[in-house]
Amino acid sequence: MLDEVALVAAVVAAVREDRLWQRHMEIATIGATGRGGVNRQALTPEDAEARRWVLEWAAGRGFETSVDAIGNLFVRRAGSDPTALPVVSGSHLDSQPTGGNFDGVFGVLAALEVLDAVNDAGIATQRPLDAVVWCNEEGGRFQPTTMGSAVFAGVLPLETALATRDRDGIAVEQALADTLKTAPVAKRHEFRSPMAAYLEAHIEQGPVLEATKRTIGVVTGIQGLRWFQIEVSGEEAHAGSTPRRNRKDAVVAAVDMVKALQDLMFDEADTVRFTVGRFEVAPNSPNTVPGHVLFTIDFRHPDQGVLTRLGDQIEGVCQAAAKGCGVRVVETMTAPPTGFDPAVLGLIRDAAQRQALPHIDIMSGATHDAKFMAGHCPSGMIFVPCERGISHNEAEMASSADLAAGARVLTAALLSLAEG
Amino acid sequence: MLDEVALVAAVVAAVREDRLWQRHMEIATIGATGRGGVNRQALTPEDAEARRWVLEWAAGRGFETSVDAIGNLFVRRAGSDPTALPVVSGSHLDSQPTGGNFDGVFGVLAALEVLDAVNDAGIATQRPLDAVVWCNEEGGRFQPTTMGSAVFAGVLPLETALATRDRDGIAVEQALADTLKTAPVAKRHEFRSPMAAYLEAHIEQGPVLEATKRTIGVVTGIQGLRWFQIEVSGEEAHAGSTPRRNRKDAVVAAVDMVKALQDLMFDEADTVRFTVGRFEVAPNSPNTVPGHVLFTIDFRHPDQGVLTRLGDQIEGVCQAAAKGCGVRVVETMTAPPTGFDPAVLGLIRDAAQRQALPHIDIMSGATHDAKFMAGHCPSGMIFVPCERGISHNEAEMASSADLAAGARVLTAALLSLAEG
Repeated sequence: MLDEVALVAAVVAAVREDRLWQRHMEIATIGATGRGGVNRQALTPEDAEARRWVLEWAAGRGFETSVDAIGNLFVRRAGSDPTALPVVSGSHLDSQPTGGNFDGVFGVLAALEVLDAVNDAGIATQRPLDAVVWCNEEGGRFQPTTMGSAVFAGVLPLETALATRDRDGIAVEQALADTLKTAPVAKRHEFRSPMAAYLEAHIEQGPVLEATKRTIGVVTGIQGLRWFQIEVSGEEAHAGSTPRRNRKDAVVAAVDMVKALQDLMFDEADTVRFTVGRFEVAPNSPNTVPGHVLFTIDFRHPDQGVLTRLGDQIEGVCQAAAKGCGVRVVETMTAPPTGFDPAVLGLIRDAAQRQALPHIDIMSGATHDAKFMAGHCPSGMIFVPCERGISHNEAEMASSADLAAGARVLTAALLSLAEG
Repeated sequence: MLDEVALVAAVVAAVREDRLWQRHMEIATIGATGRGGVNRQALTPEDAEARRWVLEWAAGRGFETSVDAIGNLFVRRAGSDPTALPVVSGSHLDSQPTGGNFDGVFGVLAALEVLDAVNDAGIATQRPLDAVVWCNEEGGRFQPTTMGSAVFAGVLPLETALATRDRDGIAVEQALADTLKTAPVAKRHEFRSPMAAYLEAHIEQGPVLEATKRTIGVVTGIQGLRWFQIEVSGEEAHAGSTPRRNRKDAVVAAVDMVKALQDLMFDEADTVRFTVGRFEVAPNSPNTVPGHVLFTIDFRHPDQGVLTRLGDQIEGVCQAAAKGCGVRVVETMTAPPTGFDPAVLGLIRDAAQRQALPHIDIMSGATHDAKFMAGHCPSGMIFVPCERGISHNEAEMASSADLAAGARVLTAALLSLAEG
């Protein structure tokens, strides 16, 4: 047997940039919008087609596949020690309604590339190497985001997840059954099945790596998050005949709330992330004073103290801006900041160093499935740059060379973990 | 023959509050939703049933009925002078999808009450007295609003109106043929047939009469209107990882535009009507910085000068608030203010005075069929209060006494015109 350094070098050398890029372009055809991006939301026929692509890839190599009760898909390259826990890597294949070709896809294809490279190098690892496709990371169709990993980790009850409905009233349970009918997997995977370690590669979805000219982001953690849903209830009235003073205009009140919340959330350092991404009006008719608005708040920060201090003021700020309308503020999701395992981060740093790739420690602004894995086993993440930090956008772009560099660092770190 | 004052007094005394209210309650059963209101949209089976009710009422009195090519229904009580032009009054029987029991219905039933009162008083008028039921005033199913009166007046081409389709693809032409099959009228009425005068009674659909404790609104005109559609184009980005300074957030820009427009449109006198009734976000996902917003402006004012001065500033105000986003402002509709005939208004004012009913001059915030009649013959409108100004709402309510008061003023004004 080769010594570990030589073995890692051999497998890293077997990572093929052309193959990795080609697969990104193939997956990009599934749900392609024709404007450069994809609409491949969770548990749609497009999602099922992407899963079939992975299943065919696994079947071609004789890898065992399994699926858990929330639809997370696992592919195993067996290890030499049948009692050893697996080292796991992956991400997601579902997209935003107008998503890009790299968000999530890169983490899955990088894991597949590792398994192919290990195969091509013709070596056996002690531990099994698992690739995972988490179900419904984006949460565009079914809330919340990172549903699959949350249920796997026991943080979200399975029944709650299965009962969640999309805007057309279709439940996750039905959509998952339909998906598994067209992308069937025989073997059942158990929730909370133990792992030796978890690693996830992902595009940064922010501008830091590009701005600092680094290829590898060693992700030290994920900032904390609080989600809110605000319902504003006014009174429908005739737009032509109702004086301003007699109105209870839900749009006027909601606009004041958003402005007041922007003031609350303003920080010169630009560390707070505050987004009103959903804003829906009823009856949404040009000549009716709107009686109802629903809007969402996505609020994130690396510091739990700030999350608590500012987040707890949201309801009061909305109430103060309501001006006669009713307001209901519901916190729909909360997640404290997550820190990744220092030993795993060390392996990523070492691998980048050894491959002479410029790297930097970085906090993740976005949430990822790795967040729930961090509570389950030693975990870490690897970022690669994306153009102008643009993501959740059909214009999302990453370079083939950077993706390959990320896959090579992932390969080295996973192999160290698989032999450790 | 009685002198005019005594004649008018005799007919006004024959107006029966109980009968008028009873008929409102009868019409309210046609298309009743079970929640206090009606869904009796234009040219539906419910609309046809309401028309049959009018036809049966007319047949019972031997009044001649006729219909024009867009479905406006006329009922004539003949006058003593066969060459004299008719005095016409009416409104509409169609409703919003969730409409009330008085909007439009009152104007039709008040006109019928006048004809019944004249009959009961046993007098002959010089001019014919016509009651009219305008087709598709609401425009909920088939756009635009006030379709029947617009076609009658020659403002909207018949072919355009007949070709208009509802959301199910059914054309006005088909729906009208179906309606006239179940509510047939033999005699054809000509478009633009001359009238001596037109008067329309209607609930105010606003709060002014109630607030000022007046029973009668002498409607001096219908305010002018300008509609705009504003499209804001930003850039979709990840809500967790994109710093504020790197965002082009279409919701942030649109909210600033709405606030700036509110400042532009603010008037202490509360005469400006400014409504953002439609506001749509794309991709409308909680964790994506929104890349696109479309919102509408409904802006109305009685003074053309104000409509021009403020309306022409809308685009500039939006551009100034755009902060890096693209803005496209399109004016989708425009209508100048309409003034009613001073002589007709004088007759309404005199009638209210003589009947000791508190009255006030008022502009109509809503549009009405009378708008197109104002270009056709001397015209006017009479408003009665409705509870809290609520209309286009199933909770719409008016008092029996106020409706009867309105019908009595209408009776007096119509009789003066019929003898004039």
